[in-house]
Amino acid sequence: MPEAGSSASVVALEGRVGFDDFVHTGPRTLAGRYLRRQWQPVYHCADLEAGRAKPLRIMGETFALYRGASGEAHLVDGSCPHRGMQLAAGTVEGEAIRCFYHGWKYASDGQCVEQPAEESRFCAKIRIRAYPVREYLGLVFAYLGDGEPPAFPLYPEFEYFEGLLEIDSYQRSCNYFQNLENALDMSHVGYVHGDNVAAFSGIGLGRALTAEESDWGVEYTFRRKDGQIRINHFGMPNVFNMYALPTDPEIRWQESLFWWVPIDDESHMQFSLHRVPATGKDAERIRERRQARRKQINLAHQLLAEEILGGRLRLQDVDAEHCDIVRLQDDIAQLGQGRIVDRSKDHPGLADVGVIALRKLWRRELAALAEGRPTKSWTRPKGLGPSAWGLAGAPARVPATPEEASRNRAEIVDVRPFVEVDAQLRALGGL
Amino acid sequence: MPEAGSSASVVALEGRVGFDDFVHTGPRTLAGRYLRRQWQPVYHCADLEAGRAKPLRIMGETFALYRGASGEAHLVDGSCPHRGMQLAAGTVEGEAIRCFYHGWKYASDGQCVEQPAEESRFCAKIRIRAYPVREYLGLVFAYLGDGEPPAFPLYPEFEYFEGLLEIDSYQRSCNYFQNLENALDMSHVGYVHGDNVAAFSGIGLGRALTAEESDWGVEYTFRRKDGQIRINHFGMPNVFNMYALPTDPEIRWQESLFWWVPIDDESHMQFSLHRVPATGKDAERIRERRQARRKQINLAHQLLAEEILGGRLRLQDVDAEHCDIVRLQDDIAQLGQGRIVDRSKDHPGLADVGVIALRKLWRRELAALAEGRPTKSWTRPKGLGPSAWGLAGAPARVPATPEEASRNRAEIVDVRPFVEVDAQLRALGGL
Amino acid sequence: MPEAGSSASVVALEGRVGFDDFVHTGPRTLAGRYLRRQWQPVYHCADLEAGRAKPLRIMGETFALYRGASGEAHLVDGSCPHRGMQLAAGTVEGEAIRCFYHGWKYASDGQCVEQPAEESRFCAKIRIRAYPVREYLGLVFAYLGDGEPPAFPLYPEFEYFEGLLEIDSYQRSCNYFQNLENALDMSHVGYVHGDNVAAFSGIGLGRALTAEESDWGVEYTFRRKDGQIRINHFGMPNVFNMYALPTDPEIRWQESLFWWVPIDDESHMQFSLHRVPATGKDAERIRERRQARRKQINLAHQLLAEEILGGRLRLQDVDAEHCDIVRLQDDIAQLGQGRIVDRSKDHPGLADVGVIALRKLWRRELAALAEGRPTKSWTRPKGLGPSAWGLAGAPARVPATPEEASRNRAEIVDVRPFVEVDAQLRALGGL
Repeated sequence: MPEAGSSASVVALEGRVGFDDFVHTGPRTLAGRYLRRQWQPVYHCADLEAGRAKPLRIMGETFALYRGASGEAHLVDGSCPHRGMQLAAGTVEGEAIRCFYHGWKYASDGQCVEQPAEESRFCAKIRIRAYPVREYLGLVFAYLGDGEPPAFPLYPEFEYFEGLLEIDSYQRSCNYFQNLENALDMSHVGYVHGDNVAAFSGIGLGRALTAEESDWGVEYTFRRKDGQIRINHFGMPNVFNMYALPTDPEIRWQESLFWWVPIDDESHMQFSLHRVPATGKDAERIRERRQARRKQINLAHQLLAEEILGGRLRLQDVDAEHCDIVRLQDDIAQLGQGRIVDRSKDHPGLADVGVIALRKLWRRELAALAEGRPTKSWTRPKGLGPSAWGLAGAPARVPATPEEASRNRAEIVDVRPFVEVDAQLRALGGL
Repeated sequence: MPEAGSSASVVALEGRVGFDDFVHTGPRTLAGRYLRRQWQPVYHCADLEAGRAKPLRIMGETFALYRGASGEAHLVDGSCPHRGMQLAAGTVEGEAIRCFYHGWKYASDGQCVEQPAEESRFCAKIRIRAYPVREYLGLVFAYLGDGEPPAFPLYPEFEYFEGLLEIDSYQRSCNYFQNLENALDMSHVGYVHGDNVAAFSGIGLGRALTAEESDWGVEYTFRRKDGQIRINHFGMPNVFNMYALPTDPEIRWQESLFWWVPIDDESHMQFSLHRVPATGKDAERIRERRQARRKQINLAHQLLAEEILGGRLRLQDVDAEHCDIVRLQDDIAQLGQGRIVDRSKDHPGLADVGVIALRKLWRRELAALAEGRPTKSWTRPKGLGPSAWGLAGAPARVPATPEEASRNRAEIVDVRPFVEVDAQLRALGGL
Repeated sequence: MPEAGSSASVVALEGRVGFDDFVHTGPRTLAGRYLRRQWQPVYHCADLEAGRAKPLRIMGETFALYRGASGEAHLVDGSCPHRGMQLAAGTVEGEAIRCFYHGWKYASDGQCVEQPAEESRFCAKIRIRAYPVREYLGLVFAYLGDGEPPAFPLYPEFEYFEGLLEIDSYQRSCNYFQNLENALDMSHVGYVHGDNVAAFSGIGLGRALTAEESDWGVEYTFRRKDGQIRINHFGMPNVFNMYALPTDPEIRWQESLFWWVPIDDESHMQFSLHRVPATGKDAERIRERRQARRKQINLAHQLLAEEILGGRLRLQDVDAEHCDIVRLQDDIAQLGQGRIVDRSKDHPGLADVGVIALRKLWRRELAALAEGRPTKSWTRPKGLGPSAWGLAGAPARVPATPEEASRNRAEIVDVRPFVEVDAQLRALGGL
């Protein structure tokens, strides 16, 4: 059980933040401290049964995540301070968790409340860290930083709308920042997802791209020859709000929200939400098709990517019926850079404006953090949303009353292939 | 073939021995030197066929263990000094071993006696180390230290008694010292082996425990509310003599002897002997039941423990018919601390008196070793034995004549599940 | 994707070259630089389809090897300088290769000729390294060094003769230099390949061996009691020209050519060519027998060797019908020394004259390289060939005209077991 993050000897000299500093996210690293200042999604609500604890590895640290008898989710330190036992192997009692080894029991606020063999006041002195947790949009969010958490960021457009909210997260075995950069890089689409036809359709043409700092992070735009524009929004430090054409022909453009969260420095999760603007019979049909697809996809894209990059399999020989090809294509591109790409060898061009903007903002913020200067407070303006060629997702149907809230709330549909759920839990379990 | 022990850069400052020094047992480490001063069990006699050599990895070093044509066991260095070839891949000729690569032949005392292609006196100058070996109680013991070995420690109670001597060793993938500590830690029993019922029955209550230094190591006692006591004996540096209730309902209390021997710093063996006080029809029935069980247990506890600690399996879902649950429970507790637990973060309580005593003695002895001062000569008083609530194993029927010796000697029964034998040999083989 | 070679911190002090310096062959190591001064075989022509790129790992570096539409083979750097993407995952277009990520296209001379999203002169500034490549005797040879490559070494005896040219390469999971040493070590034959019978037949008797520096490298001779001699030739730095009795009883003595090329420091390829002096019906029968054998051998010798060295399998229990036993025997000997043998512990004897000569030449040449002095220019005299007991391969039928050339050229027959081809491609693919 190596501690990727904690073993990284990343020394950030004042004001001199290198590309390496994006990469390492253990608790004592610059990027790790920066990411921990925000609420981060860490698990799927659906994967956490009541009365059960799970080991959870995030940014190189191991935690115990459990759902109490009340149904509430709790997150605490991964090890019992008594003798270092993994807490997730313990038992959940009400809202508390009891260590498997000697039965030390911790309330959900981390206070030790029982030490069966001790009979003393010793337990009052023992407290583990408990982390603020909130379930939202089908995901468990946690605040892993110091002090009071910031206000919990809400995404009303994804909560209240007519349609289905699909969750389709995945695990990828490379550094998370490679996925961040891939998002603000529209020019990869024509090749990575263009079925490798050399014809460049013009999507992501360098001179047609802009990437400007915004209140939330980066506004990333692409202007078509006819003047129409597409705007996507990146939210610092690791969220993306995108408008795109999905692979399902029945669904037209849809709005998505992505978070990239490190498991350790060589593995990360993409937590993905999609607003599917379908209702009634259409929604039913899509929901059914998606559930059938969860079983049909039985080839792990992670393994196929390794075969392809090892030269033993060709992308065109993969059975698309049993694999999510788009995901696999991105695997190839991002894993093809290596587990951790060496950015010092890069030769960015015009088409890399998004990547460059991202690195610039991160470097500036990490430098501020390293020097103890204030970092920028990113805020997402109300109603901000991505758009393409004049199309955009419908605005949130923000409810005025509790009754309206329950009526307006979109149904959450888990569309992760079962083979992917298994790979995720294995990677998040950390052992 | 990494050399775990030899690569550890453990510098022991004079008189300042840390918890880390217990952990590393390569030939140049403090703990490694300390453990090598005693005879250690390293293999099962039953696993060593005549005329065959086996690679053996103990405390981070690799040896060649073989049984000569005479039936005698021999232990020599793992590599041929000619060109570094693994000796265990060679052939056994009489009591000698011949290297697979160029046929250099070594007598069982390590002297090179043949170099077929050399025809010179060169071989007289080549000698590998041969290590004193003794077979006893079904186990191969070896002395891996420098100089003359100490007197071979005998356990007449385990040799001469009415009943069966069961051998039931196992391999565990964590540092050996975690298992040592687990022995002098009675309060884990109620949780780890209590089927995870939160009801603490009082076994191992802190204030009812004492751990006192003895001539042999540590006398570890527990006093029940009714005043009855249970006494187990720990023998420095790594033996335990225990009296306990086994899982087999037919067998009442039985006396056991355990050794914990490092394979490397992240894996160790527990060699286990049990005195089963059954004779006649009872013994026969027990022997048969045990042999059937060896096949029935076909789930490797090592693998199940990893699944459980990875959050993918629950202990209560394991099929007890096909797994040794008690062993698995200890796996979870000890592997749950990590491959090598970080003791600097511990918060020991009253119930940890045994663990504390153990660490104290080890630190004292290792400090003496580091400073070149004499270490304590541990001796096991004649007739010393564990007991519980007034019960104890019968005293040894020490024989007066050779005839009596063969009559009084208990039958040795190997009860290791076959899946466990396989796992052991794989781990001890080191590759 | 660890970079074994590049991470090795091998500092060669002037004039002081240790055994370790033979071992590490990354681009900045002494041995790596020395090996890169020669053309090296790196792949099988038969394994490279037209229009397809393959990742290739040689001496710790990763390259992209591809065959253009014209049928010509090309070798370029492994990563796209744009953002570090693995180039072999890209597509071959004519003689060019296009990156999978953003479609940057490189001509076979390494010049970037297209950057679809850039529309600028930027691509003129981007050039990757292209390496001289030549296909010869069924193998792809590459020059990986700096500056102009030396003259391409020809082996007319292997090109023009009456018979079949068999190719039977293999991958072995240890340092390449252990295999080099094994070649100039005739005394291993009686044991490693003597079915472990202790009877030493006198092959490789120390006083009957000589190893003299030659224009090409080392002339290695063995004199039989009757005065007959056997001469094999080693070509610096890593070629061997040998005359031996193969296992096929129908084929008498045959001449072979071997190259040992590191994949990384713990894995290497032996590229092997055999002149089979059979024609007509004999040749047909041998060819058919060999093709049948390719399927029949379905046990990977690499895996069997690990089982044997782990003490879990005995050589005599391996089914020779389904395994190449000679190869397995050498695996045991060479892997039995460890992935990288520690030569500082060696005790060489008279029978090691070949090994000693090899090390001496290598040390002398690496020292010259380290000190910036000229290294020796090795040349293979025309007509040089190995022989045994007065027998030798027929001289080359060097053609005088193109017509003669095509008539005189031996047919190339790939005899690698399919399980071996798979293992090779996996290892050479590097992932």
